[in-house]
Amino acid sequence: MTTLRLRILFGEAMLGPGKAELLERIRETGSISAAGRQMEMSYKRAWMLVEEMNAAFQDPLVTSTRGGAGGGGAQLTDAGAEVLRLYHEVVSTAQTAAAASLRSLETMLRPAGAMDMSGKK
Amino acid sequence: MTTLRLRILFGEAMLGPGKAELLERIRETGSISAAGRQMEMSYKRAWMLVEEMNAAFQDPLVTSTRGGAGGGGAQLTDAGAEVLRLYHEVVSTAQTAAAASLRSLETMLRPAGAMDMSGKK
Repeated sequence: MTTLRLRILFGEAMLGPGKAELLERIRETGSISAAGRQMEMSYKRAWMLVEEMNAAFQDPLVTSTRGGAGGGGAQLTDAGAEVLRLYHEVVSTAQTAAAASLRSLETMLRPAGAMDMSGKK
Repeated sequence: MTTLRLRILFGEAMLGPGKAELLERIRETGSISAAGRQMEMSYKRAWMLVEEMNAAFQDPLVTSTRGGAGGGGAQLTDAGAEVLRLYHEVVSTAQTAAAASLRSLETMLRPAGAMDMSGKK
């Protein structure tokens, strides 16, 4: 199945699959560190990504209570939920619109199994 | 200006901005190593990416003469030109279709200069 991985570049700011997944997992787990752990991301990196997102948008996307045993709780704000919804909308709209071109590319591929382009970067 | 960076995942195979740019520069320079150098990529990595692409598609995207002083020449094949064209078509179609959602996201951003989401990953 052909899918698109999509990064949105707003000048300096960037929103991609990693940050979107982090927002989703924060919503599910109520915790930045638990969300990061599920993605095999360091605690520090998860916090840094949240801080980047909060700095980039007018309203914070995630609110949190730091500290305490367990590391405090975290919630997606209304702005966070809306950014996540719009990100998914961009991805699905893009995927639908590009379907014909993607099918043309697929017809040029070698049959599955014969290729190895996974790998790095 | 908001732009999309887009990776196409065909099962195991992947085509993104890096490989697309490499194909473009091979077309311009007639050389895999010169194309890689322009992208500050090692000779080895540029070759590996070309080999991945050639393995993933039914017809090679790049043909080359290895060796000799200067490292031989390389050309984009018709298949390579077509894959590059389709990749750009996917990007522009996606960008146009997602324009409204992207504008909604833009309105939620802090004014430019106030943010720093660039960085790693």
